Amino acid sequence: MRPKKAIRSDMGWSTVDRIVVCGKDLVNEVIGKVSLGDMAWLEITGGLPTPQQSVLFNALMVTLVEHGMTPNAIATRMTYLGAPEAMNAAVAAGLCGMGTVFVGTAEGSARIMQTALKGVDRPDLKAIAARIVADMRATKSAIPGIGHPVHKPVDPRTTRLFQLARDNGYYGNYCELMQLIAAEAELASGKVLPVNATGAIGAIASELGLDWRICRGIAVMGRAVGLVGHIAEEIRNPIAKEIWERVDEEASAHLRPK
Amino acid sequence: MRPKKAIRSDMGWSTVDRIVVCGKDLVNEVIGKVSLGDMAWLEITGGLPTPQQSVLFNALMVTLVEHGMTPNAIATRMTYLGAPEAMNAAVAAGLCGMGTVFVGTAEGSARIMQTALKGVDRPDLKAIAARIVADMRATKSAIPGIGHPVHKPVDPRTTRLFQLARDNGYYGNYCELMQLIAAEAELASGKVLPVNATGAIGAIASELGLDWRICRGIAVMGRAVGLVGHIAEEIRNPIAKEIWERVDEEASAHLRPK
Amino acid sequence: MRPKKAIRSDMGWSTVDRIVVCGKDLVNEVIGKVSLGDMAWLEITGGLPTPQQSVLFNALMVTLVEHGMTPNAIATRMTYLGAPEAMNAAVAAGLCGMGTVFVGTAEGSARIMQTALKGVDRPDLKAIAARIVADMRATKSAIPGIGHPVHKPVDPRTTRLFQLARDNGYYGNYCELMQLIAAEAELASGKVLPVNATGAIGAIASELGLDWRICRGIAVMGRAVGLVGHIAEEIRNPIAKEIWERVDEEASAHLRPK
Amino acid sequence: MRPKKAIRSDMGWSTVDRIVVCGKDLVNEVIGKVSLGDMAWLEITGGLPTPQQSVLFNALMVTLVEHGMTPNAIATRMTYLGAPEAMNAAVAAGLCGMGTVFVGTAEGSARIMQTALKGVDRPDLKAIAARIVADMRATKSAIPGIGHPVHKPVDPRTTRLFQLARDNGYYGNYCELMQLIAAEAELASGKVLPVNATGAIGAIASELGLDWRICRGIAVMGRAVGLVGHIAEEIRNPIAKEIWERVDEEASAHLRPK
Repeated sequence: MRPKKAIRSDMGWSTVDRIVVCGKDLVNEVIGKVSLGDMAWLEITGGLPTPQQSVLFNALMVTLVEHGMTPNAIATRMTYLGAPEAMNAAVAAGLCGMGTVFVGTAEGSARIMQTALKGVDRPDLKAIAARIVADMRATKSAIPGIGHPVHKPVDPRTTRLFQLARDNGYYGNYCELMQLIAAEAELASGKVLPVNATGAIGAIASELGLDWRICRGIAVMGRAVGLVGHIAEEIRNPIAKEIWERVDEEASAHLRPK
Repeated sequence: MRPKKAIRSDMGWSTVDRIVVCGKDLVNEVIGKVSLGDMAWLEITGGLPTPQQSVLFNALMVTLVEHGMTPNAIATRMTYLGAPEAMNAAVAAGLCGMGTVFVGTAEGSARIMQTALKGVDRPDLKAIAARIVADMRATKSAIPGIGHPVHKPVDPRTTRLFQLARDNGYYGNYCELMQLIAAEAELASGKVLPVNATGAIGAIASELGLDWRICRGIAVMGRAVGLVGHIAEEIRNPIAKEIWERVDEEASAHLRPK
Repeated sequence: MRPKKAIRSDMGWSTVDRIVVCGKDLVNEVIGKVSLGDMAWLEITGGLPTPQQSVLFNALMVTLVEHGMTPNAIATRMTYLGAPEAMNAAVAAGLCGMGTVFVGTAEGSARIMQTALKGVDRPDLKAIAARIVADMRATKSAIPGIGHPVHKPVDPRTTRLFQLARDNGYYGNYCELMQLIAAEAELASGKVLPVNATGAIGAIASELGLDWRICRGIAVMGRAVGLVGHIAEEIRNPIAKEIWERVDEEASAHLRPK
Repeated sequence: MRPKKAIRSDMGWSTVDRIVVCGKDLVNEVIGKVSLGDMAWLEITGGLPTPQQSVLFNALMVTLVEHGMTPNAIATRMTYLGAPEAMNAAVAAGLCGMGTVFVGTAEGSARIMQTALKGVDRPDLKAIAARIVADMRATKSAIPGIGHPVHKPVDPRTTRLFQLARDNGYYGNYCELMQLIAAEAELASGKVLPVNATGAIGAIASELGLDWRICRGIAVMGRAVGLVGHIAEEIRNPIAKEIWERVDEEASAHLRPK
């Protein structure tokens, strides 16, 4: 007989006249008092953020909300075209593409750094950065959080995010290590490999004490907002049908009878 | 030959050293200055909110972030159990269930009211409410935005949201109409049918000028945050496997050889 | 105290050396003996199909597998571009758009007909068709299953599917009613409104005894196959990146500094 | 100026009276003639299967269609509970969880073996198996395709699938290598690690010439069928609501006022 484990969650409960979420009374302590961004912190950590944490955490999330007509945004618009009655599913479709190539990479940089610094008392950051870069190069793996096809030699979001981290007292070993990793990788590869936005987010999220496994969630929450924005624009000015028709026509032109 | 239409979006663009989202410079005007909730307003409307709009819009979004172990949350946790490397897809799975039964219903109430009040100069709200209820009852359709299995005779979230609407100068015809619809429906059906949270959200979103077709997005953005919260808790205290095993054992017990 | 209901499923169970699905021994009765299409019938109905049911049911499913570069296919390819490590999520993204506009409409036509014929002993099909069309026109609803932007005055898939239904002994009241609905609608509207492929599928699925609520599943199973096919081609000949870049460039051209 | 690449696809096209998919006339060559499983082969490879390929490929797909109340099936049912109007999205939700933990692992075993055997003329399979196991153990990675929590010391699906491969002339180096990997891993770890179903599928798919990157698709197509089956059963005998309520009650019991 399999021993039963308890099923237990602290996320929320409700009675006839009361709803409690993460230990807060929804009606009296949350609605009208806590913003969406601070609510995200409450959901993930179980408590409300300090003003400094709030500024930084909101900054991380808004960084990835919008980046124009990305593949995610196109997927969401295509899905909305076929199922306007289910805009939730159109956002879901867009989120499905937040993987290792785009926006999902904050997870990877946080994982590498949290693993490297775990339990290390007074880390030699330069040596750690060198080892990380050497290890990744040995297995021919891309180093998450560095390099960008467009934003180089500097990703302007990174500069701003690290400045905010300093201003709010959260520029520590992770931010430093991320910069050293980029410097090492540039040296080793001869390429221009600045810390990109997801690298900065992975570092600052680590400073804020967030588990690397939840770091992709920062991008997910932000991008969910952005994808709803794309649907709002698609309602005002529909372009999905035109995109589809052009792609379909060109893609099959060589097959069609002349 | 099909005439080509333009493909045009105002959501964002970037160059080597600049990223612009919804007309704002991301680095200098957004990161560190705009919170996630206000960013959502910017994405949907194209401009930043007034303080009153910010309070109200954030209030609408945080209302639906969390409601404990809902079917959405269970779907997200089940998905994360099988694919922890793609937490974005686990959130997507949870969003897929935000339809006509749960949380997706703000759309319906906003649609009914925006359709009814469109172009009407000095509406007789009581007569409109009576007609809406009669029409829905004639086609045996559920009236979206009223009634709740648990929160009755009053949904405490509604009381709070309508108070906030008043405090911020946004309690107008839509809020009034929503209340009248509930009163009419209670009268006609003899059941207890308070305005529920999604009804209040549909009404206030309409007051804020949001198209009914984007109203489900308020819930989607909020719940995306909540589902990331559930994954964070699942990482700290995993329960998905236990839920699965119990369900599987009980569901197939009658089939298994004794 | 809420009374507990039983949680019970007949879908499958397994022990150390045995796996049973829908009452069949997977290893000895299914693998190598039952094709994917017949397995779908087993999953939905609980038994294996007759040869006639097998031909027809497979015909319904293959009809909607592929239709070139549809919005679903584009959504899947965009998703795969960002998350090639999770092709399952790319297929999921494509399925999210199978709603009321494209391919999901077999559900609607089956619902209308199953509702109209339920419990009716010797139905007057012409009168029923006239009433359905009148009802839909009164509420300005689109009649599901008729009309097509390209395939007119006849959808060649419909001709073929109805012929197969006749050949296999399944051309009955539903098929007849679907044709009458189209004829009535053409008469009433003055438009060319042939029974389209999803209308034929809704009718034949009804003849086969399938609940209208599962009819969209026929398209879902078929299209899941087609979307995997698109990923296979995307691997051989990637085009998603080019689609994205063109869309992004054109969409934001008016915003970029000259 | 970015040079434009061609956007080209061979998947399908249509005119007023003709639909062509993967080079076949849909109406005259596919509907009523090609089963869903063979259609899947056509979609992925561009041609119809031989009888041997058909038996094997269908066998691979049906193996993973159904495994009772899995996490995927629970996610699909939870999603359907909230959005019965969008059963396509409920299937999508279930597919999102087909990752590295469950059913998605055929990809991994195929990748390892195709990489190892690529361009090798007369491979020493035993040495290759030993190297693969050593490499995986050195990086503490799980070896995909071996081991099973329930089906041991033998996964009965594997025995059957490899027999079918032999019977149809497709038991070659990949199948042999997969067996050797399992044997090596058992030796090295001292654990019972049989080739599991996804390992057999990865091996046989490789024998059939399928790219490892498409192998997860075999499971995706099969499981899409199975998830539609779960929705069909949920319609007949709903259990999702009971699962949800029990989980919700137990999970929050410690929080509720006594």
